[in-house]
Amino acid sequence: MEIKDLGEFGLLDRLTRNMKPVNASTCMGPGDDAAVLHYADKEVLVSSQMFMEGIQFDLTYIDMEHLAYKAAMAVMSNIFAMNGQPRQLIVSLGLGKRFKVEDVDQFYAGLSKACDKWNVDIAGGDTTSSYTGLAISLTCIGEAAKDDIVYRNGANETDLICVSGDLGSAYMGLQILEREKTVYYQQVEEYNNKVKEAQRNNEQTRLEALRKERAAIDDFQPDFVGKEYLIDRQLKPEARGDILKQLREAGIRPTSMIDISDGLASELKHICLQSHCGCRIYEKNIPIDYQTAATCEEFNMNLTTAALNGGEDYEMLFTIPIGDHEKIDKMEGIRQIGYITKESLGSFLITRDGNEFELQAQGWPLKEN
Amino acid sequence: MEIKDLGEFGLLDRLTRNMKPVNASTCMGPGDDAAVLHYADKEVLVSSQMFMEGIQFDLTYIDMEHLAYKAAMAVMSNIFAMNGQPRQLIVSLGLGKRFKVEDVDQFYAGLSKACDKWNVDIAGGDTTSSYTGLAISLTCIGEAAKDDIVYRNGANETDLICVSGDLGSAYMGLQILEREKTVYYQQVEEYNNKVKEAQRNNEQTRLEALRKERAAIDDFQPDFVGKEYLIDRQLKPEARGDILKQLREAGIRPTSMIDISDGLASELKHICLQSHCGCRIYEKNIPIDYQTAATCEEFNMNLTTAALNGGEDYEMLFTIPIGDHEKIDKMEGIRQIGYITKESLGSFLITRDGNEFELQAQGWPLKEN
Repeated sequence: MEIKDLGEFGLLDRLTRNMKPVNASTCMGPGDDAAVLHYADKEVLVSSQMFMEGIQFDLTYIDMEHLAYKAAMAVMSNIFAMNGQPRQLIVSLGLGKRFKVEDVDQFYAGLSKACDKWNVDIAGGDTTSSYTGLAISLTCIGEAAKDDIVYRNGANETDLICVSGDLGSAYMGLQILEREKTVYYQQVEEYNNKVKEAQRNNEQTRLEALRKERAAIDDFQPDFVGKEYLIDRQLKPEARGDILKQLREAGIRPTSMIDISDGLASELKHICLQSHCGCRIYEKNIPIDYQTAATCEEFNMNLTTAALNGGEDYEMLFTIPIGDHEKIDKMEGIRQIGYITKESLGSFLITRDGNEFELQAQGWPLKEN
Repeated sequence: MEIKDLGEFGLLDRLTRNMKPVNASTCMGPGDDAAVLHYADKEVLVSSQMFMEGIQFDLTYIDMEHLAYKAAMAVMSNIFAMNGQPRQLIVSLGLGKRFKVEDVDQFYAGLSKACDKWNVDIAGGDTTSSYTGLAISLTCIGEAAKDDIVYRNGANETDLICVSGDLGSAYMGLQILEREKTVYYQQVEEYNNKVKEAQRNNEQTRLEALRKERAAIDDFQPDFVGKEYLIDRQLKPEARGDILKQLREAGIRPTSMIDISDGLASELKHICLQSHCGCRIYEKNIPIDYQTAATCEEFNMNLTTAALNGGEDYEMLFTIPIGDHEKIDKMEGIRQIGYITKESLGSFLITRDGNEFELQAQGWPLKEN
């Protein structure tokens, strides 16, 4: 169905009609000039993220539902990274002409799954046209008691540096997706060349046979055997609200925290910069999944680089007082990777063979290349 | 300066370094995973709007500073339309490769002017690349006491329908900008044809003369004489927070309110739909500026259509109890244009000659044509 047949208001009505808020703080959701929220006893946390087609995502790899789920998890992850609870999501879309109502339905299905997982209400947003691709802007609103909020600037000398889960897996998932895309386009190109040749020579029987070949190419099945975990990490990341719960139950309050969306090195630099401190992390302690390691070898890539600079893991990076060392030792899925130092000592990775390398932060202009 | 020379973090630091929050509710602005806001005694209002290059704006008409000012006013206007005060702005940008650091500086200069006007803090956001043009997503957060909030759904039978300012002027400003753009491109095309001809005939002297002509075309000055007000309305709209103040001072509380961004007809339909009522508005009462009327005649366009369906006026449309009739009569810059009826009576415009036309709502898919 074409979006213009429904119109902007018809579309928004279709998408939001059956939404029932689950949070007491959501007084009124979509349908007026602004959402109305009630946050009397808590601080309000607000985080926005933008996802542009061709930059943050490629719709040849990911469908609308997974894309929405991933984008929602990414922005909720920012609220968790403040030690807060996400409560509302505001959704703005810029839709190129090729998108149909069904695409938007799928997108909202993905959003709903992500929101259901963390009890978040879709409380409003905006939908407009786009001259070309798809632009997504998500704003997540959450809450935290004033004293519970964990900033980036609270790390102290001797604090332990911890990360949840494993690193580099989402990045290696992307490498596999890109490889399979290349394989597919090679097949399409070879096919197109054969067709052109047959047309040039007016070979009707061969053209007939080629038409059948085309169906086989369209049925192209990418080869993900043994890489399922990596593909999952890339296409269906999870915000680590569960880690916050674990920490609270263990009586640990991080001194600083950030989620790992741009790579460990970059995020750790943020913490050090804002906390006015330095750090030492150990290559051997960085948590890496077996599939990540195997795929790095296959692609002839440096494993530590993938773990340090590969983005989109959405794991939690945090610092804790050294006194909590034993408590954190007992917790599953959290790894101590190093410690905080004086600022004057700089930020370094200590390799397996004992060398020290200064950590470098990377932002988005680098990702384009 | 190229954005990649600064990097994402360098750019954000440059833009936000000197920002000092002016609102007590802004506990922490940009620089962490989320902004931290404190809204203990008030309801929180949140509104997001997206602006896509080639759809909502055309950078051949408007510069980055005006664009930012206009976008900020548009989203603040949503908060005013709830009878709230805007307090924070979250800014997300998707920047095509042609944009330089100076463009982003200009954009933030425009944002700052708009924010200064209404004491709003820039509290965070996201900056990323874009495959093609410029994508802007603004989220405005504001506050209102629970009982002060005015929704779209509170209009009652016999309520008076009022609008602030005048309508259709921003739309007619756009028509003039589009005409001048066409004139400019015609000149460029004619010039290019002359150059091609001269090259074909190898006329060196003529080519030399043409090169001088080019400078004159580049100095093209659009003809806005006598249309300054309309151009201003299109390029530098103002959110009508002053109207709310006037109403409060007069002791008037609107029963329903919305800002006019998509045209009077469309917004009035929203109020009627959500308030389960109908309406009658009088063509002769719709406030129209002299320049709007003159330009409509010049363009051979229907004046009432421009006022009903022309967007981006950002005036306030609201309903008040009929008992406030005399109070509103005394207020400058507010016009009573009709009244609310039973739902079963529908929504109609009564023309100067006494005919009734049903009001039609329009959304963005129509604007593309």
